[in-house]
Amino acid sequence: MSRWEPGAEERLSRAAMELYSERGFDEVTVAQIAERADLTERTFFRHFGDKAEMLFGGGGHFIALFVDAIASAPPGPPLSAISLGLYAAAADFEPRRPFVLERQKIINSHTDLMERELLKLSALAAAMSAALRDRGVPEPQASLAGWTGLSVFHTSFATWVSSDGRSFESIITESLAELKVVAAG
Amino acid sequence: MSRWEPGAEERLSRAAMELYSERGFDEVTVAQIAERADLTERTFFRHFGDKAEMLFGGGGHFIALFVDAIASAPPGPPLSAISLGLYAAAADFEPRRPFVLERQKIINSHTDLMERELLKLSALAAAMSAALRDRGVPEPQASLAGWTGLSVFHTSFATWVSSDGRSFESIITESLAELKVVAAG
Repeated sequence: MSRWEPGAEERLSRAAMELYSERGFDEVTVAQIAERADLTERTFFRHFGDKAEMLFGGGGHFIALFVDAIASAPPGPPLSAISLGLYAAAADFEPRRPFVLERQKIINSHTDLMERELLKLSALAAAMSAALRDRGVPEPQASLAGWTGLSVFHTSFATWVSSDGRSFESIITESLAELKVVAAG
Repeated sequence: MSRWEPGAEERLSRAAMELYSERGFDEVTVAQIAERADLTERTFFRHFGDKAEMLFGGGGHFIALFVDAIASAPPGPPLSAISLGLYAAAADFEPRRPFVLERQKIINSHTDLMERELLKLSALAAAMSAALRDRGVPEPQASLAGWTGLSVFHTSFATWVSSDGRSFESIITESLAELKVVAAG
């Protein structure tokens, strides 16, 4: 096995999800995940800090989805840039719906994993705020917009997971419209 | 010492803050906190789960501030109820500013404590959303408003902590106005 096995991250994720579903998260070891993926434990630890981290997108891919879209958005109000980030994430999640639902079921079954998910979301809000500041958005607007973007993502994600076949994109559009109503008071 | 020592929670908090400041959070034990407060360790554990929890308002007082204000708000749009919660929290924090700043310094010096703070904030968003649902606000509006309220609190708190003498109330008012601008896009 080469040091930089192509597709290793995806193979490890897939193997882990299979094993978590079959045996329960607590019962699965890193050694078993590596074996199922036909890779070594060392390869596992080059990609993930531990067996929980792999549920949260590993190498920052999740947050990069939002941040890259914000960074490359055309000039305009902060929420327009945030919206592009939300739609980029929706487009990434949509085709992986079965995987995402399965992963969410595992996360929701463990307090520790739910806590880790919340921390990831906080990191996302902070990263979106920073991406806006990089575009010259002043404080407190940048922080407000970053956290408001998280509100929309968090709420839309919950709707998408529990809905039966509605597109993530259309749910984001609806949540953004609701946000305007809520914020207008 | 009686089983229900009056003011025990406040005495323990004050003792803990003194010791954390003097010796650093890691160096302080629950036994030392109880001794400084002239109370027993058993009394400590009737009020707090551990020495970190006491930094986060112990028995749910922090979250109750918001939830009680939302529950007793006059009929109106969700953000009006949320705003009353934000102002109630600001009024509670303002006279305790030296304590709050000291506590924040301790929290910001430990990753574990910062993580615990973020989890508390997530719990606050969820509690505000639930308080709105109890008032008949439908989903996804209730969740959006709860998390948006958190955005305003989180951003305003950061401004208040780093500002020199501006009132928390006026910062909340400003953030709510900024939110309208941000959300209108």
